[in-house]
Amino acid sequence: MRETQLILARKGIMTSEMKAVADYENMSVQTLAEKIAEGKVVIPANKNKVLKRAVGIGEGLTVKVNTNIGTSSDYINLEEEVKKLEVAIKVGTDAVMDLSTGGNLEEIRKTLLKRSPIPFGTVPIYQAAIEMVHKKGGIVHMTVDHIFSVIERQAQEGVDFMTVHCGVTLQSLERLKRQGRLTNIVSRGGAFLTTWMLYHGKENPLYDHYDRLLEIAQKYDITLSLGDGLRPGSLADATDRAQIQELVLLGELAQRAWEAGVQVMIEGPGHVPLDQVEANVLLEKKLCKGAPFYVLGPLVTDIASGYDHIAAAIGGAIAAWAGADFLCYVTPAEHLRLPTVEDVREGVIGAKIAAHVADLARGDKKAWEKDKKMAEARGRLDWKTQIESSIDPEKARYYRETSTPKISDVCTMCGKYCAIKLVKEYLAHKTPPHQP
Amino acid sequence: MRETQLILARKGIMTSEMKAVADYENMSVQTLAEKIAEGKVVIPANKNKVLKRAVGIGEGLTVKVNTNIGTSSDYINLEEEVKKLEVAIKVGTDAVMDLSTGGNLEEIRKTLLKRSPIPFGTVPIYQAAIEMVHKKGGIVHMTVDHIFSVIERQAQEGVDFMTVHCGVTLQSLERLKRQGRLTNIVSRGGAFLTTWMLYHGKENPLYDHYDRLLEIAQKYDITLSLGDGLRPGSLADATDRAQIQELVLLGELAQRAWEAGVQVMIEGPGHVPLDQVEANVLLEKKLCKGAPFYVLGPLVTDIASGYDHIAAAIGGAIAAWAGADFLCYVTPAEHLRLPTVEDVREGVIGAKIAAHVADLARGDKKAWEKDKKMAEARGRLDWKTQIESSIDPEKARYYRETSTPKISDVCTMCGKYCAIKLVKEYLAHKTPPHQP
Repeated sequence: MRETQLILARKGIMTSEMKAVADYENMSVQTLAEKIAEGKVVIPANKNKVLKRAVGIGEGLTVKVNTNIGTSSDYINLEEEVKKLEVAIKVGTDAVMDLSTGGNLEEIRKTLLKRSPIPFGTVPIYQAAIEMVHKKGGIVHMTVDHIFSVIERQAQEGVDFMTVHCGVTLQSLERLKRQGRLTNIVSRGGAFLTTWMLYHGKENPLYDHYDRLLEIAQKYDITLSLGDGLRPGSLADATDRAQIQELVLLGELAQRAWEAGVQVMIEGPGHVPLDQVEANVLLEKKLCKGAPFYVLGPLVTDIASGYDHIAAAIGGAIAAWAGADFLCYVTPAEHLRLPTVEDVREGVIGAKIAAHVADLARGDKKAWEKDKKMAEARGRLDWKTQIESSIDPEKARYYRETSTPKISDVCTMCGKYCAIKLVKEYLAHKTPPHQP
Repeated sequence: MRETQLILARKGIMTSEMKAVADYENMSVQTLAEKIAEGKVVIPANKNKVLKRAVGIGEGLTVKVNTNIGTSSDYINLEEEVKKLEVAIKVGTDAVMDLSTGGNLEEIRKTLLKRSPIPFGTVPIYQAAIEMVHKKGGIVHMTVDHIFSVIERQAQEGVDFMTVHCGVTLQSLERLKRQGRLTNIVSRGGAFLTTWMLYHGKENPLYDHYDRLLEIAQKYDITLSLGDGLRPGSLADATDRAQIQELVLLGELAQRAWEAGVQVMIEGPGHVPLDQVEANVLLEKKLCKGAPFYVLGPLVTDIASGYDHIAAAIGGAIAAWAGADFLCYVTPAEHLRLPTVEDVREGVIGAKIAAHVADLARGDKKAWEKDKKMAEARGRLDWKTQIESSIDPEKARYYRETSTPKISDVCTMCGKYCAIKLVKEYLAHKTPPHQP
């Protein structure tokens, strides 16, 4: 079995994954390998399988999007989860995470994993906790060995990246308590570990036995996604001492991962006011020495329930422009219900818009070509190309087809008074041929 | 009849409109009057009527949202336009513009104007152009007298603010031609005037006879919204010489408006990459000496057809945070069709989110109270307050009601593994009472 992409990159060995990513990113494979060697880019790809599409995440690359799917204890429908996976891939997600907490977790994960051509992530503490709920009646019955057996099982199956909330420590929890918060802990993994830690009065096993985690990650080349169990759950809690204490710890853990030859990225908030987004990205990049930053949203208001994909698109665009590398989507159902297939679709597109907008702001050539193609089609009143150039041609086509203009080369917004048509015809003929 | 709010503010006379606005904004009426006197704040309110809700726009005030409604030559349904007005008001628009270009324009405008409790705007050149199309067969048959007669008619009826594309001059058009563009002119008003100017080889009547415009505006206290007829219609055209040449002219015209005691605001783009949004706001504030800035979006990508309300929410949030004062909504139907009632609803909410997010970033107390109320309700698992605190309680309620959790105080996203519930119960009892 090969070594991790990180170790190989350090040795100057170019893998097929590196070549595929370099090609997609219009970057030389040497430059890419350097960035991987420095820990600034990751390619989540489990050694036990070959990804149909390898994806690079980090500095100098285009912004990537992740889609969370999975059952809950209240709603279990594997068929629907498969559909969510399919629609997310169709509209362009770069990675997917199975966050299932209801039903047969193994079966669900294996089914989704098999169908995913892109990097596949999990939060193994979910399965560890829920197995103990079913077997012994409570989360607190998790044992260290059991947690690591779940992690290893998932690694063997071919999971590419794992969220591990290693920074929820007795120290950071103490800081949280001392300071107080409006919404204490909103991370499920963080809450599971907190419950366990406070019950047993013991340190977080993922922190205490971090070397054991690194060993498994190294063995399978699992990219560790160091979770932010203490991320703010409201604007008022953003950038507080608990959050930053955890981030400081994650920076140290990232360094230890690199020393062990393990790829690592850092998870970030959450709920953050617009004016704090850039500072949060800068802090991560400084405290974690350039490790890729994976943000959830961020949501720039607490009150957008039903429209949190829009609040997340605003926060995500600014975060990515400031240097965040990987945007976890948020759906319109956030804070309200388990997302439906349609919610997933809307969520992915929202995050894709944020990522694209940041790529444009960063001057990415391919992104600019897309917008130029659309602009030229608009200038030509070429509707076929306009529809095809849309971020979601299906929806654009639906909108256009549901409202037919009387003149075929305009739309019903302006009809015959279409500005582009008026000016175009005038400039072409010098005298107005089409006098509406 | 009273004088304009600007003239009255200069004299230190506090109007009922100023008092209402100051009260809403938590600002002393003296401070507000100073800002109006300096031209940094406008209160669009026609002398011929009393607004149910006076609205202030400009520096130091909360960010406001405008909704464009109106028929097109391809789709005329007054009943539906009334519904659009109603839904826009229901979800919190601060102003509305009737951009009708199809059907009986007078009847449509009068009907909508009568039902609008908030500032009501128009683009009079539409009616001027379209009347000539119907009477004489072409836009080019507009005469100066006819244009001003339409403006005066609309002013008499009670229109509060008017978009006038005074900056589309022979000089700025020449700059545009010399430079070249991907999407020449995308403003309807700009295109009407351009067609007329190039056909006759004459200067823009709204520029040439600007004093006549100021006279009417002063007489009725119409707030002039100096339109950006040369706004970029694509990212590639943003912040180009044509756009900035027009903005320079608008700055001069704003100064002349103030000298005539006329309230004025400046319209801005359009299609602008994320990294140019802040500079665009700064330029407007400098070139136009602090006149309120009214932006359309801006759209931070060209390819979001079907989701342009999201692209506009991103651009609008950043623009408003940087100092833009008034956000014109963009609907998901933009670039594709005349918006439906549902499109209008989605568009207004998108713009409201952008405005609110900027208010938060600017530290507005009322905005923060809203988010804190929501965060506290989340912390308490108080669903009734969560729904009521949402930006659109109707939609939030729908989402929640379509997916019922097994335990009533959580949602189906996390079910019994709700992080807030787990931690809350643990912290309350010190030993986990609820062991999922």
